[in-house]
Amino acid sequence: MAAAAPPPPPAPAPTPPSTVPEGSTPVGHPIFARIRLAQPTDVPQIHKLIHQMAVFERLTHLFSATEASLLATLFNSPPFLSFTVFILEVSSHPFIDIIQHQSDVLYPPSVQVVNLDLPIDDPEREAFRSAGSDVVVAGFVLFFPNYSTFLGKPGFYVEDLFVRECYRRKGFGRMLLSAVAKQAVKMGYGRVEWVVLDWNVNAIKFYEEMGAKILQEWRICRLTGEALQAYGNTN
Amino acid sequence: MAAAAPPPPPAPAPTPPSTVPEGSTPVGHPIFARIRLAQPTDVPQIHKLIHQMAVFERLTHLFSATEASLLATLFNSPPFLSFTVFILEVSSHPFIDIIQHQSDVLYPPSVQVVNLDLPIDDPEREAFRSAGSDVVVAGFVLFFPNYSTFLGKPGFYVEDLFVRECYRRKGFGRMLLSAVAKQAVKMGYGRVEWVVLDWNVNAIKFYEEMGAKILQEWRICRLTGEALQAYGNTN
Repeated sequence: MAAAAPPPPPAPAPTPPSTVPEGSTPVGHPIFARIRLAQPTDVPQIHKLIHQMAVFERLTHLFSATEASLLATLFNSPPFLSFTVFILEVSSHPFIDIIQHQSDVLYPPSVQVVNLDLPIDDPEREAFRSAGSDVVVAGFVLFFPNYSTFLGKPGFYVEDLFVRECYRRKGFGRMLLSAVAKQAVKMGYGRVEWVVLDWNVNAIKFYEEMGAKILQEWRICRLTGEALQAYGNTN
Repeated sequence: MAAAAPPPPPAPAPTPPSTVPEGSTPVGHPIFARIRLAQPTDVPQIHKLIHQMAVFERLTHLFSATEASLLATLFNSPPFLSFTVFILEVSSHPFIDIIQHQSDVLYPPSVQVVNLDLPIDDPEREAFRSAGSDVVVAGFVLFFPNYSTFLGKPGFYVEDLFVRECYRRKGFGRMLLSAVAKQAVKMGYGRVEWVVLDWNVNAIKFYEEMGAKILQEWRICRLTGEALQAYGNTN
């Protein structure tokens, strides 16, 4: 999809899950959540997540990405300068023994502990498990630089934000979007932008709570398919 | 502006200006139009064009770009891989004697001859004249790669498309947008996207005539200013 997938709609929770600092002793059912840069070995998981997003949006007829096309296009430049993917991983144990990823040097992973009232039953645990560990991929965000001529500086555009169904309404969507916003601030960028479907009131409420403004007057124009190909032969 | 400026609204012209192949003998008032890659020496002109766009959109209160900020951010990567600017130049004479630009190797300039019924009176001719020639900068388009996860490949996003007032309604906006679309096809990209204000019916008609679909349901979300800066301090 050219537009960011709507995030999991936030549910009004009388007792929302609390985020406790790493290192402290969580009570209830703690889940350790880590955001790190994606790397080429994550492509099979990313491909599955994008397909789930297409199913969620009932847009599988528009889905033509393959693992090969993702691999060929997603890792051709340093992170943040072009297309960039953050992977959200969760684990019931601290990430102490996990192997280091090469990309950790470019973006030190951030870990939070979320305390849940109930444990999460993940029916796709095996399909999304990282090799040789109890770490599971729960979601991702794909973003890339955009540019504001009025500000005279770059920003980030969030193309996709997706959290697998059983991990929704637990603050992970916010965690992913916050990580992009934090990186934008770190780089001195002026804006973070994305799109939302106008009927997705829960998503709009969630985004507004995160500080975003919804620009009501602008519409996206898209030139694609045969209409685009026709320009290949013009002078 | 984070969104593409609306193009000059197309006027229904009983006898629209005709584009004749380069090399043929134009009749009436020919104007030679060239699209080339911008380079750092174009920044003063680009800055003036962006400011004119802000005036046109009545958004000068959002305009904070400086020549220095544009220079620092627009030329840090090869063209087409990040922020890219095409400059539209016009001349009453063929571009035969014009000095070659370094960027011509990366993108051979395209020249068209447009035959007008009346000559163009450009009140800002001196301010937008290229040094030592009768070539005048008439407009620009700024674009950069975006990414479709559904297609699994990049596209282009057109941030700004602007033609100075006296050059509007002559096909130059279409020429600039076509150049971006042609480059997208050349690179095997899947889409060209931009945005338009929903009340700008002339612009929407123009874009639809160019083959674009208007996505009615999506809204832009923007996180900027203090709301964005607040994320700099989050965990």
